[in-house]
Amino acid sequence: MAEFVEVHVTAPDRDVAERIASAVVAERLAAAAQLVAPITSVYWWRGEINQADEWLLFMKTTAERFDELAAAIRELHPYEVPQIFAVPLVAGTPDYLEWIRRETAPEPGA
Amino acid sequence: MAEFVEVHVTAPDRDVAERIASAVVAERLAAAAQLVAPITSVYWWRGEINQADEWLLFMKTTAERFDELAAAIRELHPYEVPQIFAVPLVAGTPDYLEWIRRETAPEPGA
Amino acid sequence: MAEFVEVHVTAPDRDVAERIASAVVAERLAAAAQLVAPITSVYWWRGEINQADEWLLFMKTTAERFDELAAAIRELHPYEVPQIFAVPLVAGTPDYLEWIRRETAPEPGA
Repeated sequence: MAEFVEVHVTAPDRDVAERIASAVVAERLAAAAQLVAPITSVYWWRGEINQADEWLLFMKTTAERFDELAAAIRELHPYEVPQIFAVPLVAGTPDYLEWIRRETAPEPGA
Repeated sequence: MAEFVEVHVTAPDRDVAERIASAVVAERLAAAAQLVAPITSVYWWRGEINQADEWLLFMKTTAERFDELAAAIRELHPYEVPQIFAVPLVAGTPDYLEWIRRETAPEPGA
Repeated sequence: MAEFVEVHVTAPDRDVAERIASAVVAERLAAAAQLVAPITSVYWWRGEINQADEWLLFMKTTAERFDELAAAIRELHPYEVPQIFAVPLVAGTPDYLEWIRRETAPEPGA
């Protein structure tokens, strides 16, 4: 797995998206969280096709922090099976990647 | 290749984007399709730089289903060379990944 | 690394985003650049959590061109540490991938 990842999450509305973004950055589970856009999702759920308006979130973190980040998102997320997955960063400017690493390092003593 | 992918497609307008999203989900070529946002594209085409407003779509499926999904998109797509590519999911919550697998499985007897 | 990548960049506003998009396409450092959406970023910077409105850009290029593309973006970018990273294209329709390759090839004699 790549060392750095972008995590893609959807939330039911902007409020929940903001709450998740603030919480995961405050806990240093992500160096940044971006509220990308209101989206419209078309998806299968319990044998039926549903359509819903949601908010898309992108978060930057290390692959190492993914499990902890996913657990924190789940606690704040109202869905039974929220969308939480990671795509790999296969290249990046060195200072940007170093910034992700530094900002997601656990606080001393934490 | 990763087992699960997010497929990024652009469509000329929201109507075409919606038609593609509905069709590929109905055929279980993707577990979900998201109409992300209206975007502005700047691109080379036949020796000239063009600018166009488009709609961005993200679809969740298995790597195994990519070729079938791409073929279905092409049939509905008015462009000669549409943007259709996949980025890999290198991590994800197990129930979310399992949901993609289940919802993209061909219907029994299909 | 994959042969083709999507580069994700954020800019402080739409003007800067457009300037970067036009420049990198004109120089064939990317086959296409997309102004995706205005986003809200929550991030760590110098020991404090900041929030800012930004513009998200996606660019399509070859892995080989990434360093040159990143250098060109930095010259046009007002941030000290701009977000510049690449996610890999692990699948794509052959004509689309071939289009990226062709449009990012240096001009003859350049």
